[in-house]
Amino acid sequence: MHQPSDIEIARAAEKRPIREIGAELGIPEEALLPYGHDKAKVGAGFIAGLAGRPRGRLVLVTAINPTPAGEGKTTTTVGLGDGLRRLGHKAAICIREASLGPCFGMKGGAAGGGRAQVVPMEDMNLHFTGDFHAITAAHNLLAAMIDNHIYWGNALGLDQRRITWRRVMDMNDRALRQVVCSLGGVSNGFPRETGFDITVASEVMAILCLATDLDDLQRRLGAIIVGYTRERAPVTARDLKADGAMTVLLRDALQPNLVQTLEHTPAFVHGGPFANIAHGCNSVIATDTALRLADFVVTEAGFGADLGAEKFMNIKCRKAGLAPAAVVVVATVRALKMNGGLGKDDLGAEDVAAVEKGCANLGRHIENVKSFGVPVVVAINHFTGDTEAEIAAVQAYVRTQGSEALLCTHWAEGGAGTQALAARVAEIAAADRANFAPLYPDEMGLFHKIETIAKRIYRADEVLADQRIRDQLHAWETAGYGHLPVCMAKTQYSFSTDPSLRGAPVGHSVPVREVRLAAGAGFVVVICGEIMTMPGLPSRPAAEGIGLTAEGAVEGLF
Amino acid sequence: MHQPSDIEIARAAEKRPIREIGAELGIPEEALLPYGHDKAKVGAGFIAGLAGRPRGRLVLVTAINPTPAGEGKTTTTVGLGDGLRRLGHKAAICIREASLGPCFGMKGGAAGGGRAQVVPMEDMNLHFTGDFHAITAAHNLLAAMIDNHIYWGNALGLDQRRITWRRVMDMNDRALRQVVCSLGGVSNGFPRETGFDITVASEVMAILCLATDLDDLQRRLGAIIVGYTRERAPVTARDLKADGAMTVLLRDALQPNLVQTLEHTPAFVHGGPFANIAHGCNSVIATDTALRLADFVVTEAGFGADLGAEKFMNIKCRKAGLAPAAVVVVATVRALKMNGGLGKDDLGAEDVAAVEKGCANLGRHIENVKSFGVPVVVAINHFTGDTEAEIAAVQAYVRTQGSEALLCTHWAEGGAGTQALAARVAEIAAADRANFAPLYPDEMGLFHKIETIAKRIYRADEVLADQRIRDQLHAWETAGYGHLPVCMAKTQYSFSTDPSLRGAPVGHSVPVREVRLAAGAGFVVVICGEIMTMPGLPSRPAAEGIGLTAEGAVEGLF
Repeated sequence: MHQPSDIEIARAAEKRPIREIGAELGIPEEALLPYGHDKAKVGAGFIAGLAGRPRGRLVLVTAINPTPAGEGKTTTTVGLGDGLRRLGHKAAICIREASLGPCFGMKGGAAGGGRAQVVPMEDMNLHFTGDFHAITAAHNLLAAMIDNHIYWGNALGLDQRRITWRRVMDMNDRALRQVVCSLGGVSNGFPRETGFDITVASEVMAILCLATDLDDLQRRLGAIIVGYTRERAPVTARDLKADGAMTVLLRDALQPNLVQTLEHTPAFVHGGPFANIAHGCNSVIATDTALRLADFVVTEAGFGADLGAEKFMNIKCRKAGLAPAAVVVVATVRALKMNGGLGKDDLGAEDVAAVEKGCANLGRHIENVKSFGVPVVVAINHFTGDTEAEIAAVQAYVRTQGSEALLCTHWAEGGAGTQALAARVAEIAAADRANFAPLYPDEMGLFHKIETIAKRIYRADEVLADQRIRDQLHAWETAGYGHLPVCMAKTQYSFSTDPSLRGAPVGHSVPVREVRLAAGAGFVVVICGEIMTMPGLPSRPAAEGIGLTAEGAVEGLF
Repeated sequence: MHQPSDIEIARAAEKRPIREIGAELGIPEEALLPYGHDKAKVGAGFIAGLAGRPRGRLVLVTAINPTPAGEGKTTTTVGLGDGLRRLGHKAAICIREASLGPCFGMKGGAAGGGRAQVVPMEDMNLHFTGDFHAITAAHNLLAAMIDNHIYWGNALGLDQRRITWRRVMDMNDRALRQVVCSLGGVSNGFPRETGFDITVASEVMAILCLATDLDDLQRRLGAIIVGYTRERAPVTARDLKADGAMTVLLRDALQPNLVQTLEHTPAFVHGGPFANIAHGCNSVIATDTALRLADFVVTEAGFGADLGAEKFMNIKCRKAGLAPAAVVVVATVRALKMNGGLGKDDLGAEDVAAVEKGCANLGRHIENVKSFGVPVVVAINHFTGDTEAEIAAVQAYVRTQGSEALLCTHWAEGGAGTQALAARVAEIAAADRANFAPLYPDEMGLFHKIETIAKRIYRADEVLADQRIRDQLHAWETAGYGHLPVCMAKTQYSFSTDPSLRGAPVGHSVPVREVRLAAGAGFVVVICGEIMTMPGLPSRPAAEGIGLTAEGAVEGLF
């Protein structure tokens, strides 16, 4: 039998007009700004009017450490949303927008899979509603204004060697990682070293995803530090008078996008910050809007729970006053086997021992999430080859951790495959058992915050950092940034900073290579290991196979 | 009395829902892809179905050589469209989209002015429907694939010193004009010199504006020459397998945008190629679609008639099989005075002699346009300070040229101010008096084509070109590109290549500095003088004053 591909399923989907999706949440048609007939932005005026309403329950979907075998976080987010809606609940999901650049590198979209997808899939993996292009433009306007300021006399005294604001492009383009600009003589400015990051790595992206309204957006944009003077005094976007124009460029982009799942569950798809040098969650505005309109909102966070859930709790929830009512940790038998030591080619045969060994990774994530005061349910995202004994082993292990693991078949069956999970999650969330608190208080010192995460989440013995880095953190504390949360950038493949250390490593150290202040986003980025902020294309980029079919459909993108 | 500003008038406008604007042209609602409630793209499927329909009459609005005093080409295009519609004709206008970058440099939008504007003005000067962002992405994807191809072994043998494809950004950013990329070591590629142009200067922009459908678009994109091998053999986007993915990125952008004038006349706003290194007109698809749906279509071309109308006729009309039924040459008394030798500060007092002297510029444009076999009407775009004697002088002069000059007050009165012009244009166009032919045949040699334009349009004595340039043109002829039209890039301020030579200079030479082959767009660019393809920001960029008001409106953009 032909197993339909994700794109075949998505294309065959009968989408409802987006005004009907909005109507299900009580959004009047005039509050929707349509982009075609299947996408809309929810108007800022309508959102402002929701402020007084109570919030529904927030459910976070996170996962064990990712492996090449896949976990299915977005797929589970979609499936759980559909499952809750099938049970009669007013439910919505919130996920991130896809970045354009990577679509032309390795195949693969970011809208779920199988029968648990968000549509229109093609649009979501291309320009969508233009949010990322707006972010690119706002980011690069600031960059142009920096060099222009220097060109016309540099009244602010920016030290050209200390400009930290780079440019961005939503493209995988390694040639732009490091450039010398302003060459060619007097009329082109003062040559200096700089480079490009991919748009999702922009601080503007993180700001858009944390801002609560246009005023807050402009305040945060203005606070961006673009560089320093020779006296090491910070120069901000506000000093350059760029914050107003940047806000204008982002005015539409700040309004969350509404689409639908294959089962017509309302889906907010908005923002997409990197999960390493940024916090990796969809926008606060989308989550908050969904919570004012639905009884249950299912959302996700990037990478494994050590990075994604930690940042969701310590950055997004702390800053936005959100509190999850329950957390779902997604695991697959295949990924647990890899965490248990198997290679990618050895996943075909039943291996209960490997599953049991890999469960240590899952167990630690469960324990970590519980340490935030939030109840945990495990979703076993079913793959065809999983055996009953393997599944039973996971379930038995999770019971020993005081939680419950439910088998989900949403990839093959959509919301019908998550009925048990949805019922359990709804029960837990509605019981208000959560007693959420971030891991550390605002007033804790910056280095102490890093240590807290490293020891309590990563289970490291120590944090290694040069005096230079410690001095920098102290300097920021003195300058009034000590209250900020820290945003850890490390490999997503391990609790440690060594990507090859699967399972539940102990006794490791966390070396801090660099710290960066994202004063507009409102966090201190702590870089542990090599972090790539501008990907490259592979030797055979997916772009080579992308094109339109004779019928005008997109092929090769997924 | 307070004279309302353009933006105040635009904001006060009562826009009709875009589906009503479409309905006036017979476009069913399901063929419109809405972007908000006041913008829509016209679906490709609907457009394909129009192929058999007869075309309405096409009216080109062009102008005398621009001066700092202004002419009002777009304003007149809008006013004439409104005027024709007031007379009961089924009319539409076609204009170019605005570039984002310049909006943050010098104040000023590109949607007409006064009572003759296209709305929504704010959107049109910001992201609009995302077309330019799509062009930027498609252009830069090709750039990334070039460097990626070299990185992974350079199987096509591209000579890194002979890569002609640069990158683009829709921003005024002089720091990007000339850069060295791929610095930083092995993993970032091979360092080389390159740079960025502004998006409107991209060949992809010219291609989008000349393509007739998606197949033609992909064929043209594939034909783009990105550089040469050491053996001087061209390497194309098709060789790099980039044409399919670029087409996918441009699929939505190729569909023309429909908005409205203040008087609800349907306005197609689509594409915006540079008027120097490209042909400076809105898209062929928009013009052709409008002509299938309306009885009269008013459109414009960039700069003065020596550049804009010449390229409209010799490139756009030739390639798209279009033929204008009439041409309107816009002049203002103030600009004629400047052409007559007055400085910008001397325009306040009546000076009939200066007007008469400046009419030489107008007269030559009339004669040039007539040489294409198309009847000409002059529109005097009225400014408050114009005196009756000055206006009468223009009208008398134009009569001596065998044409007619009609006073228009559309800036102050909208379509009511162009009733005489509209009636005359409709009469001439409906009489089918035009006998349009391009200035030169396809089979004429490339250098001969340049000479023909220089002598017959610019009235130069000679074209100066190094042997290197003549050899290059011969080489392209040998390679099969000899049939292409030439796209002249020279100053817009004079018939000559010296911007300070106003009026109707004679006896000058046209020095050709450089020639470039735009094989995808389908023309040879002939650069005469300094042409800037990446603008810079001024010392006090408009961006510094742009922001949102407390009510959420954009200020400082216009």
